[in-house]
Amino acid sequence: MTFINKDFMLQNKTAKQLYHDFAESLPIFDYHCHLDPQQIAENHKFNNVTELWLAGDHYKWRAMRAHGIPEEKITGNASSEEKFEAWAQTVESVVGNPLYHWTHLELKRYFAIDELLNSKNWKSIYDQANKAILEKGLTARTLINNSNVTFIGTTDNPTDSLEFHDAIREDENFTVEVAPSFRPDEAFAVGEEKFTNFIKKLQDASTKDVTTYKELIKEIENRVDYFNERGAIVSDHGLGKLFYAESTDDEIEAIFLKALAQKEITAEENAKYQTRLLSDLGKMYHARGWVMQLHFGAIRNNNSRMFDLVGADAGFDSINDQTDVAYALNNILNALDKEDKLPKTIIYNLNPIYNDVVASAVANFQSNNEGIKGKIQFGSGWWFNDTEQGMLHQMEALADHGLLMHFVGMLTDSRSFVSYPRHEYFRRILCNFIGERVENGKFPNDQELLKKLIENVCYNNAMRYFNKAK
Amino acid sequence: MTFINKDFMLQNKTAKQLYHDFAESLPIFDYHCHLDPQQIAENHKFNNVTELWLAGDHYKWRAMRAHGIPEEKITGNASSEEKFEAWAQTVESVVGNPLYHWTHLELKRYFAIDELLNSKNWKSIYDQANKAILEKGLTARTLINNSNVTFIGTTDNPTDSLEFHDAIREDENFTVEVAPSFRPDEAFAVGEEKFTNFIKKLQDASTKDVTTYKELIKEIENRVDYFNERGAIVSDHGLGKLFYAESTDDEIEAIFLKALAQKEITAEENAKYQTRLLSDLGKMYHARGWVMQLHFGAIRNNNSRMFDLVGADAGFDSINDQTDVAYALNNILNALDKEDKLPKTIIYNLNPIYNDVVASAVANFQSNNEGIKGKIQFGSGWWFNDTEQGMLHQMEALADHGLLMHFVGMLTDSRSFVSYPRHEYFRRILCNFIGERVENGKFPNDQELLKKLIENVCYNNAMRYFNKAK
Amino acid sequence: MTFINKDFMLQNKTAKQLYHDFAESLPIFDYHCHLDPQQIAENHKFNNVTELWLAGDHYKWRAMRAHGIPEEKITGNASSEEKFEAWAQTVESVVGNPLYHWTHLELKRYFAIDELLNSKNWKSIYDQANKAILEKGLTARTLINNSNVTFIGTTDNPTDSLEFHDAIREDENFTVEVAPSFRPDEAFAVGEEKFTNFIKKLQDASTKDVTTYKELIKEIENRVDYFNERGAIVSDHGLGKLFYAESTDDEIEAIFLKALAQKEITAEENAKYQTRLLSDLGKMYHARGWVMQLHFGAIRNNNSRMFDLVGADAGFDSINDQTDVAYALNNILNALDKEDKLPKTIIYNLNPIYNDVVASAVANFQSNNEGIKGKIQFGSGWWFNDTEQGMLHQMEALADHGLLMHFVGMLTDSRSFVSYPRHEYFRRILCNFIGERVENGKFPNDQELLKKLIENVCYNNAMRYFNKAK
Repeated sequence: MTFINKDFMLQNKTAKQLYHDFAESLPIFDYHCHLDPQQIAENHKFNNVTELWLAGDHYKWRAMRAHGIPEEKITGNASSEEKFEAWAQTVESVVGNPLYHWTHLELKRYFAIDELLNSKNWKSIYDQANKAILEKGLTARTLINNSNVTFIGTTDNPTDSLEFHDAIREDENFTVEVAPSFRPDEAFAVGEEKFTNFIKKLQDASTKDVTTYKELIKEIENRVDYFNERGAIVSDHGLGKLFYAESTDDEIEAIFLKALAQKEITAEENAKYQTRLLSDLGKMYHARGWVMQLHFGAIRNNNSRMFDLVGADAGFDSINDQTDVAYALNNILNALDKEDKLPKTIIYNLNPIYNDVVASAVANFQSNNEGIKGKIQFGSGWWFNDTEQGMLHQMEALADHGLLMHFVGMLTDSRSFVSYPRHEYFRRILCNFIGERVENGKFPNDQELLKKLIENVCYNNAMRYFNKAK
Repeated sequence: MTFINKDFMLQNKTAKQLYHDFAESLPIFDYHCHLDPQQIAENHKFNNVTELWLAGDHYKWRAMRAHGIPEEKITGNASSEEKFEAWAQTVESVVGNPLYHWTHLELKRYFAIDELLNSKNWKSIYDQANKAILEKGLTARTLINNSNVTFIGTTDNPTDSLEFHDAIREDENFTVEVAPSFRPDEAFAVGEEKFTNFIKKLQDASTKDVTTYKELIKEIENRVDYFNERGAIVSDHGLGKLFYAESTDDEIEAIFLKALAQKEITAEENAKYQTRLLSDLGKMYHARGWVMQLHFGAIRNNNSRMFDLVGADAGFDSINDQTDVAYALNNILNALDKEDKLPKTIIYNLNPIYNDVVASAVANFQSNNEGIKGKIQFGSGWWFNDTEQGMLHQMEALADHGLLMHFVGMLTDSRSFVSYPRHEYFRRILCNFIGERVENGKFPNDQELLKKLIENVCYNNAMRYFNKAK
Repeated sequence: MTFINKDFMLQNKTAKQLYHDFAESLPIFDYHCHLDPQQIAENHKFNNVTELWLAGDHYKWRAMRAHGIPEEKITGNASSEEKFEAWAQTVESVVGNPLYHWTHLELKRYFAIDELLNSKNWKSIYDQANKAILEKGLTARTLINNSNVTFIGTTDNPTDSLEFHDAIREDENFTVEVAPSFRPDEAFAVGEEKFTNFIKKLQDASTKDVTTYKELIKEIENRVDYFNERGAIVSDHGLGKLFYAESTDDEIEAIFLKALAQKEITAEENAKYQTRLLSDLGKMYHARGWVMQLHFGAIRNNNSRMFDLVGADAGFDSINDQTDVAYALNNILNALDKEDKLPKTIIYNLNPIYNDVVASAVANFQSNNEGIKGKIQFGSGWWFNDTEQGMLHQMEALADHGLLMHFVGMLTDSRSFVSYPRHEYFRRILCNFIGERVENGKFPNDQELLKKLIENVCYNNAMRYFNKAK
């Protein structure tokens, strides 16, 4: 039997039935990814499987480093063939890591390759995959279309012109909706060079001076409107830690001036600034009916030597820990809710030890008069939790403290056009989770209920939550 | 097969045998609950199932809010019927949450209803339940008697007259022992209005002035004696976080005066005051052979908007996190133990990430010359951990770091007269936990040993620990 | 069927096959233990099973205290027989705790006793065990030889003469390699008496004055060389918490002088000193190709009353918690790596909530040009995690964030000559972990791959990592 077989990850009869009957054929609502809109607009063609599959994939790079592969063959100047071979050598030792499953799912779904990749067959698989890219015409758009995707939310800088989004929208040959998402992380980076760079870019984009926090907010709001007019319905925030600290307007203006002058910002000033900006942005999102996404808990660029060599987002980030997550999260949400300006919000947590804190905190802010089910969401297992364990732990915490039925489900969160099998992986794990509970009598064996639950979590909830349901 | 069937939650043959042979028919020793002694004294009659089952149940309210139900139908002025219907609509979406199990256990055990509650059958179930209340005479006392309860420990303010406890004790028609528990949380709330209110009530109860910390301790000790004379054997403390900070007598008196004058208390002052008061109380409990209960890890009243609308204990609390739990807990216990004044103590932890810290810390303080088995207890999964996951994780940590055999087991912790099936739920989960380990050879299949283990954890240990065993 | 049977802990067919075919007969590479080199050198003979099995085993002592046994019969003056009986009484109540498994594994493997120890059969088992000690000649060396051990790494004070290691090495009658490990914890204990005692011992050993930090480093480096010449390849550090704080040379010298003068050291000074010393030591280890072991997360000597009675390492330690583990760990490793002086390092974490933080942090520092696979290791479940749960959670985190294939596996970490069955226990759990995943299709059923994986983790990786592979 092939490794990636029909019932992969499905451990019992009910799980199999649920997956094949209800989950398998649903489309994908990809509300959060890092695909490059230019590549979609231009229908990018890939030179070979290394470019399509290994370039940019820092998950794979980390595994290769742990396997003792020299950087030359990871992000360096080695040839595409050498890099592919190095990855194949690594794959044998990756058993147990989610990469082992992703690798073989991706080889099968996009290249119809059923062998286990290893240091013996790598050349043949390299050739087969390259042939498939050529013969099947595996471009950016065909990969999306083959994956049954109905919506793509990219991740975009507030100062972006969104020209490629315009091009995609105007192109009648491509019917998948591709919307920009508003990611203003640089506006939060007080004390860092990218903050002042952002202010410059913002000034360029708006043709107005930004010399005060008040002006910053005004110009950011202009960009929110700019995004809104181009179909954006979502914002995204990557926060290293969660903070909550109140401040006066004068304090915030003073912090802003210090940041602009590239002076050092204290921890307390940073907390005040983060709190204020997030709160001001939350109100903008609420006013426009957007969804606010908060990702927290990464510690980044931990290896200075490798940062100097290969830069950011290259596989040197890891899971962060902090104290008083409950205090910060509850107070952030409350600051908006008490003014009745809390938008629909998804909280993604990178350190699974905070799952119960997050799942029980979001339950404090569900009250609403618009009948929104699951207004505040505990987001899916993300990055280091995008694993069987990570997904299961997230769903267990969500189910214990909230309503699984209203969960908006999986996000792709990928830079790659061949990462859609992560949805398949999630769905198999979800169906197994449910199937197990049906077979042991913890969930009722009510097909109507189970169909609704699975379709909701896999697709319908996202359609509804992001206002795309008819 | 009905959902709540004979072998609900029991996944293997041994689990079934253990539950039915050893656990099922044991009485309940309910050493910690929030039942209203007045309702027991007066044998309260319920108007309808909404009053009995939904009023006061903030677990259900949270689920209803997450389902998008307007507050009007949760805690507001909607009719009993409308509220019941709103709950029934919610139940369909609650599958996966412990409420789904509790709901159907309670419907079956008290109302003999076997259907799954939903938005179609709600009216018929509403009528059946109301009919059962009337026809079966489901009053406060009959519900207790039907539940095979031998002891009830309520939760009482130190200033309470305990008149209803007196009335129950003197009433020969009701033979279940109902004892008060001493819960002096308000005495800890320095810096809050309820602290000064408590001092006033304490002065009224004692007819003495309380103007110093020393006088506070004296008058609290009088109330401890008052409770002691009326059968109290247990105290209870709800602590948001665990602190440990040493102080001088003068510092404590100064903090007390600030608190009395309603001045702001610093975090350090608060930690010192908490530490001192808990330590002074611990010695009183030790002198009287009481059990001290410490619950920690809730963050409360997080939603200001809803707090203004519906007040405290209404479903807007969640799990807290902090740092240095091990430091605080070990030092609190040590402060008492080093003077040989550590009472029997149960530590309940709300955030499961501290399970291993708590379970390994209590093992540092088991030494005693009275032959007490499990003198310091790691308390059962509580509130947000009163779930299958929560209970299993607590038992796994307890078994890894201590002796499951001496565990005092489950508490009800409920405001409702129909929450006793939580003991049934716990026992099924316990028997399944043990049965699994017997079947896979990790526990010996020694019926005598298993009988002792199960009877101990379900009932006998509590009887022994609280000095009620003959 | 006996409790400790052929397939103990092995829950499925594949697990059984993997264990018996690949794991069972492998030797043990015991790279980290606390065996006494003098007892090995002198081939210590044990008077009775109490001396061999109970004396020094604080795991058992903790259980006895929780069972209400008076200290007299634990660490006190009771007779060997009385102590054995007290332990036997306790064992019945220990079911569920890893001690229950260890106890019966040890009785079976060393004394061929298959009965479950209890309060009825204790005398007969006591006699049988004592007879076995005598008749089988169970001395320090025969116990090691019978356990199929090829390498033992003891734990030694930097000032130790290593005379017993010399004696063992020179003794041709004993062929197991016994190497010292360098454990300079006392050099870190600024502000404590043992720090100044250590400085004195260091001066004695080196016959040089140590009056500055710079001199301390020089004399420690001399001791590192002394150990190196006697076969040491490993250092070990026990850290209560992880810190990272940068400092100037002048600051460090000032802190050193304060510590030498027995003045109080602030938390900040302590963090700076810990950081600097660990970093300076790390460079020494790197220069010599040693492996650096970092154990963190214990809080020690929590019970003052019992510390006064029975001293340190007597069962009054527990699991610690802290904040900013990710920050500290990443920065410590980076401080060495950015100078290209990071040695091979194993991080052992006592609080399982940090498993994901540790496993994902070590993955940031795997890059190396020597082709070392798994250069930075997430160490095996240790002390309170030396349990089925603890081991599984460690392996799950390791597999999710790194490569299980390169894991150096289990350490004994024991003071006892009869603790080697902990390797058997680990291997059974490992094979069950893998077998389960093979049977449910998550690992491929590729015997060559599985053999390699199991042999690597059980033995070959340690041989390779510690440079002992031919």
